Amino acid sequence: VDGGGTWRGKAEADDGARAMFDQYHSVRRATVALCAGLSAEDQQVQSMDDVSPTKWHLAHTTWFFETFLLKPHLAGYRPLDERYSFLFNSYYEAVGPRHPRPSRGLLTRPSLEEVHAYRDHVDAQMERLIAEPGREVLALTTLGLHHEQQHQELILMDIKHVLSCNPLSPAYAAGAPARVVDTRPAGWIEVAGGLTEIGVQGDGFAFDNEGPRHKVWLEPFRIADRLVTCAEWLAFIEDGGYRKSELWLSDGWATVVAQDWQAPLYWRVRPDGWDVFTLEGLRPVDPAEPVCHVSYYEADAYARWSGARLPSEAEWEAAAAQAPQEPLALGLHPAPAGEGAGLRQMAGAAWQWTASAYASYPGYRREAGALGEYNGKFMSGQMVLRGGACVTPPGHARGTYRNFFPPAARWAFSGVRLAHDL
Amino acid sequence: VDGGGTWRGKAEADDGARAMFDQYHSVRRATVALCAGLSAEDQQVQSMDDVSPTKWHLAHTTWFFETFLLKPHLAGYRPLDERYSFLFNSYYEAVGPRHPRPSRGLLTRPSLEEVHAYRDHVDAQMERLIAEPGREVLALTTLGLHHEQQHQELILMDIKHVLSCNPLSPAYAAGAPARVVDTRPAGWIEVAGGLTEIGVQGDGFAFDNEGPRHKVWLEPFRIADRLVTCAEWLAFIEDGGYRKSELWLSDGWATVVAQDWQAPLYWRVRPDGWDVFTLEGLRPVDPAEPVCHVSYYEADAYARWSGARLPSEAEWEAAAAQAPQEPLALGLHPAPAGEGAGLRQMAGAAWQWTASAYASYPGYRREAGALGEYNGKFMSGQMVLRGGACVTPPGHARGTYRNFFPPAARWAFSGVRLAHDL
Amino acid sequence: VDGGGTWRGKAEADDGARAMFDQYHSVRRATVALCAGLSAEDQQVQSMDDVSPTKWHLAHTTWFFETFLLKPHLAGYRPLDERYSFLFNSYYEAVGPRHPRPSRGLLTRPSLEEVHAYRDHVDAQMERLIAEPGREVLALTTLGLHHEQQHQELILMDIKHVLSCNPLSPAYAAGAPARVVDTRPAGWIEVAGGLTEIGVQGDGFAFDNEGPRHKVWLEPFRIADRLVTCAEWLAFIEDGGYRKSELWLSDGWATVVAQDWQAPLYWRVRPDGWDVFTLEGLRPVDPAEPVCHVSYYEADAYARWSGARLPSEAEWEAAAAQAPQEPLALGLHPAPAGEGAGLRQMAGAAWQWTASAYASYPGYRREAGALGEYNGKFMSGQMVLRGGACVTPPGHARGTYRNFFPPAARWAFSGVRLAHDL
Amino acid sequence: VDGGGTWRGKAEADDGARAMFDQYHSVRRATVALCAGLSAEDQQVQSMDDVSPTKWHLAHTTWFFETFLLKPHLAGYRPLDERYSFLFNSYYEAVGPRHPRPSRGLLTRPSLEEVHAYRDHVDAQMERLIAEPGREVLALTTLGLHHEQQHQELILMDIKHVLSCNPLSPAYAAGAPARVVDTRPAGWIEVAGGLTEIGVQGDGFAFDNEGPRHKVWLEPFRIADRLVTCAEWLAFIEDGGYRKSELWLSDGWATVVAQDWQAPLYWRVRPDGWDVFTLEGLRPVDPAEPVCHVSYYEADAYARWSGARLPSEAEWEAAAAQAPQEPLALGLHPAPAGEGAGLRQMAGAAWQWTASAYASYPGYRREAGALGEYNGKFMSGQMVLRGGACVTPPGHARGTYRNFFPPAARWAFSGVRLAHDL
Repeated sequence: VDGGGTWRGKAEADDGARAMFDQYHSVRRATVALCAGLSAEDQQVQSMDDVSPTKWHLAHTTWFFETFLLKPHLAGYRPLDERYSFLFNSYYEAVGPRHPRPSRGLLTRPSLEEVHAYRDHVDAQMERLIAEPGREVLALTTLGLHHEQQHQELILMDIKHVLSCNPLSPAYAAGAPARVVDTRPAGWIEVAGGLTEIGVQGDGFAFDNEGPRHKVWLEPFRIADRLVTCAEWLAFIEDGGYRKSELWLSDGWATVVAQDWQAPLYWRVRPDGWDVFTLEGLRPVDPAEPVCHVSYYEADAYARWSGARLPSEAEWEAAAAQAPQEPLALGLHPAPAGEGAGLRQMAGAAWQWTASAYASYPGYRREAGALGEYNGKFMSGQMVLRGGACVTPPGHARGTYRNFFPPAARWAFSGVRLAHDL
Repeated sequence: VDGGGTWRGKAEADDGARAMFDQYHSVRRATVALCAGLSAEDQQVQSMDDVSPTKWHLAHTTWFFETFLLKPHLAGYRPLDERYSFLFNSYYEAVGPRHPRPSRGLLTRPSLEEVHAYRDHVDAQMERLIAEPGREVLALTTLGLHHEQQHQELILMDIKHVLSCNPLSPAYAAGAPARVVDTRPAGWIEVAGGLTEIGVQGDGFAFDNEGPRHKVWLEPFRIADRLVTCAEWLAFIEDGGYRKSELWLSDGWATVVAQDWQAPLYWRVRPDGWDVFTLEGLRPVDPAEPVCHVSYYEADAYARWSGARLPSEAEWEAAAAQAPQEPLALGLHPAPAGEGAGLRQMAGAAWQWTASAYASYPGYRREAGALGEYNGKFMSGQMVLRGGACVTPPGHARGTYRNFFPPAARWAFSGVRLAHDL
Repeated sequence: VDGGGTWRGKAEADDGARAMFDQYHSVRRATVALCAGLSAEDQQVQSMDDVSPTKWHLAHTTWFFETFLLKPHLAGYRPLDERYSFLFNSYYEAVGPRHPRPSRGLLTRPSLEEVHAYRDHVDAQMERLIAEPGREVLALTTLGLHHEQQHQELILMDIKHVLSCNPLSPAYAAGAPARVVDTRPAGWIEVAGGLTEIGVQGDGFAFDNEGPRHKVWLEPFRIADRLVTCAEWLAFIEDGGYRKSELWLSDGWATVVAQDWQAPLYWRVRPDGWDVFTLEGLRPVDPAEPVCHVSYYEADAYARWSGARLPSEAEWEAAAAQAPQEPLALGLHPAPAGEGAGLRQMAGAAWQWTASAYASYPGYRREAGALGEYNGKFMSGQMVLRGGACVTPPGHARGTYRNFFPPAARWAFSGVRLAHDL
Repeated sequence: VDGGGTWRGKAEADDGARAMFDQYHSVRRATVALCAGLSAEDQQVQSMDDVSPTKWHLAHTTWFFETFLLKPHLAGYRPLDERYSFLFNSYYEAVGPRHPRPSRGLLTRPSLEEVHAYRDHVDAQMERLIAEPGREVLALTTLGLHHEQQHQELILMDIKHVLSCNPLSPAYAAGAPARVVDTRPAGWIEVAGGLTEIGVQGDGFAFDNEGPRHKVWLEPFRIADRLVTCAEWLAFIEDGGYRKSELWLSDGWATVVAQDWQAPLYWRVRPDGWDVFTLEGLRPVDPAEPVCHVSYYEADAYARWSGARLPSEAEWEAAAAQAPQEPLALGLHPAPAGEGAGLRQMAGAAWQWTASAYASYPGYRREAGALGEYNGKFMSGQMVLRGGACVTPPGHARGTYRNFFPPAARWAFSGVRLAHDL
């Protein structure tokens, strides 16, 4: 992790301390703001192994700055509590042993208040460190902020799951995030293909797994100009999509049977239709909004049912780079969709499953040391998602951004964009 | 459940409203007092399926009064929230469906504050009901208070387990409950046996499983006048007690191997000895205190190792009835042990495993209806414990009282008293 | 294990070599005869952890003689294969490590033929040993033969389960064992109770767990003079017995729900009734035969449903000792039931669940050494069954005989005899 | 599935009946020959869910001809036993319900003899069908024979696992298959890359997943001219390869820890070295032979440790197509390696893990109907292996052949060929 290396912090390194100071506080405050409506109890609970408590997210993002910035780079730094190094390490084997993931929800101490004190302690020391930063500190701080933004999304994904387990169907907050509704019919965008370059290049920040930029050969294809809607998904359900084994991958069908899937994760059947559990609480499914919280298996089966297929991640990125797009709708309050033609809902609605297994790009090298564990060690058993969701912080995602989840995962804000051979 | 029936509330039915009013508030306040040092986060968490969150205990004991007193007996009673009937039912099939036990820890709502409001609501209505009580109301209220006392002990058992899962080893509270230390050597009390009666009789409150009183034949036996100490248990460990299969029941040995038991539940090895996690936090094992948090399997293996055996529950009860006893040390602050001879530590230190499987007494009949599920349906797969522990509310236990846990359970405050054939 | 000790082989010790020789060959041949209709494949398979392959039973019973007779008592004995000591040890920790129980079905080698050669090898050496036996050898040989008879029953229990897993419903053999059908109505036998002695006494062989003989106090009771029939069980099913939680123990109800029990183990629903899988293959349920292959949980629920209860093992044994009995119907071909009054079907039909947890009798001591593991270490988590089944070898069971299985087990030939308080 | 379609049977369709007749019997006889040394017991057992009994393989390959050839194409065909359709269906949902995979080992009936009768019955009818074949019959018969060859390899993989579970370490057969030993040092072959075509084209048989032929862009790379040897793997072990988390994928490391991997699947530690269980029984590891029975996780970790990487499947295929090769060593008795330079051990030694997740090629379409389930539905969660192993039937594999297994699987004959960026 040097300033000009994998994490591509070159530009940031030149921003100077002031810009970084503002950026740091802006991101850190945004995290805290997301938790404003949650009680200490809400922030304590872990509803499944994949979910982390809100409080843990608040502490772990802080641990990241302490571990990778303050301890190695701020002379004389004194940790608030040495034991937090063990408690709030997520998965970095190189940093040392750690509290087991499925037991994160058992940590009633430190209290939420103490975790906020931990944040304040680290923020104060980070201010000192940023005051006269070197290139590496700027690059690592930038990485830490993008890391924190990833956890902002995880906080919303995870608390949604926690609250969904409560028979009272409580709301995270009224009115947030806004729905992405687009009633215009779907269209298809043609992409010529051929020898194409994908992957990140240049000075802006990017994660190491987005590069190196490299050539791929693409056959010509069509890609849908918007996501699959709930109305379309209802047709799949009503046609018996969840009961027809021939539509499914073998592992997918085994999952459907074992977990008795009959609809997307948060859908709940009523005598006369479907409700959906959202961050606003329970409400009727809106036919015009993109379907969300479907697994790769479901996305793949739906695509087969509809006579289409999922795009590869190279196709998705090539389309994003070549076709005209409506403004990316980013963050919690996406701008209303415009009138013009072009690719819609590339970001701001739901992550989009691709047909590509998550793997390294040609020429990719893991960093040495703990930060080499950030992305590279997860390159098996997961599928790539592209785009960005309504819970992704504005400005966080990019056209080259590679999200990834196991094919059975449904608690991410994951949807479906279709493609076709030409 | 009528006023003169199984729950033996006759005497209470005559006490009049005033006494019941005082008793009600005294018990209910004691429950709240136990939680005073715990944060909302502490009271939220469920560390294993057997453990319930403190908040859930606060709500469930309240649900008990609402369900069995207010709804059937207080005309015009309006529940605070109809959904609590589902959320806070523990195991009463006859009351209707219920929230699954392993998911109790996921209920971040209602909040702790709302649960206290629920307690206040029910307490206010209970005051109205008790103001002019009939026999049945008095009997059921008495049952509800004994039920609540059982949950007072469970709150301490459960929060101890929750806190023990935290690598920070936090204390529940400083100084409570006091240790029961008795440095006098052990002695043996001889009991003649013969045709003996055990089981409850008379007017005081007792649970239905404590009767009917009935005859048993006992061979003469000796029973230890105090519990096995930590010093004695250390000798068992050092002699390889946890590695010698010949000392163990077959199921016990399988558990030792599968769970890698090497000491009582909360013992933690140091290079130079043993610490024990307590409600005060982590501290060195005190050789003079009774060993606690051992399973039936361990108690049985220890007894075999020492050349003795566990008493049957009839032997325990006969000894308690016939032999002189030092004052029962009850509750959180047991009186210091006296000087005289006699059975010591019969209560106030630890529950005492007996060799008896939990079963119905001859002539026992389950109540009809939901309250028939209170005790009778658990009469398989569990062993009886007698006495009372340092966390048992003062006055709660009796000589005929039958506690019961599965043979592998260790999170109750369970210890060992030995017996011998004569 | 001395000749006059726990295993009570005194009388046998005086029989002399000839009688023992005949008895040995008679029992050993009977085991082989049971397997005559089974292929090598049939004898290879283990259908669940509790089941052992037929071939394993053939080898293990041989191992028993090799381990406890030939190795310690026959000078110069040479094992056929030293590795069999590891492969065919069932659960004797004191004998050394052993092949894991759930992997018994994986031992395709030694072949069935080799196992028969092992039997021949051991039989030949046992002949030499028995030719001039001492008291201890006679006592241990007698124990080995009773052990082998227990495995004769297990062979039939286990192969029935194996074959039941095959969708072809193959028969073990045509016509065997004969059904026990008794169309006479049920009656009740009154037993006065009082101070009673139970347990074995005297010179005949008995297992150590059948003694010491000791006093128990019994209240007066009634006991059914025959077993519950399939017709009666059908009424329980039709009344919703498997759907009414209030009839069940808590653990039992959890098992009913988890395993979706709707009838006894081998019953299979047809559109117009019930079939039952038997050692003869699939056939319609016969309303007049005793119900079989029910768990303790089911027996207990049925008894509650019918307004009765299960007898304790002391009641069962006292009734057997005091009431007139029709000749015990023993073995595979029970004699047709006679005309006279008295207890019927005490043996030869099905084992009978009692309300008693399997525990040691007062004064019981486990043997030292490996044979001490035979019975004593299983004294937790199991319920006692009394009597004997259609698959129990003739002459094997006794009035004091204590069979035991976990409360959820159904693959033993277990039925129900009811009792009542008077 | 038409004669000229996905299964690419065009050429075979012109061979005429005679050639097909010979080919049919040759393959079918080869299957039976593989089982000659196995007892009925050996052929009965299933040692884990992934393994099928030999007898089941014999029946299932026969079922394939019955289901896809005889039933639809031979007028008046009468199945030997209608129930075999249920028992021996592997995973074809479109054919109807089937016996559960983990219970295949419980089918002691039909007996091995009956399964051979089933083979004879189907062979006789297949002769009639082949006598005057149409294009489709020839194509499907060809598919059936390649399917049977796949099961020939599975028979050896599976019986090796079965026998390995036996503490006696029995041999499948003496001397087979021959070891592939090559003591010449490893070299690197350079491949220029660029726009390259991979995938099958032309008239010979190929599975549907090998096409369509399509363009890929490859950067220049080097590929090892032989497989990683046991000597090299020993160095990895001795350097702590199985204890260094930084070498492993996250899922791989979790598997190493959970299953306590310390060496390849069949390696067994001795005080002074390593033995390996083989089809010949237990013998010392030969340093000069290719390492085998390693998972993808191990292959990937080894490559990282050695400073190299695994080739993608496109790289492997391009190298195979472009670089000079020593004669492919195929089948059970590979020819001794020659002298010339070039790629060695491309087949005949071990399957070679690639870095490519198993996915469809651009333009791939699953067949409609049951045969569409043959390959396509497994395209998730698996990694591609290329080449062929010592147990792969001679002539079965091709340069375009795509084998696939989950990344944790080790019971296939899987090894490692390294690659490098240039």
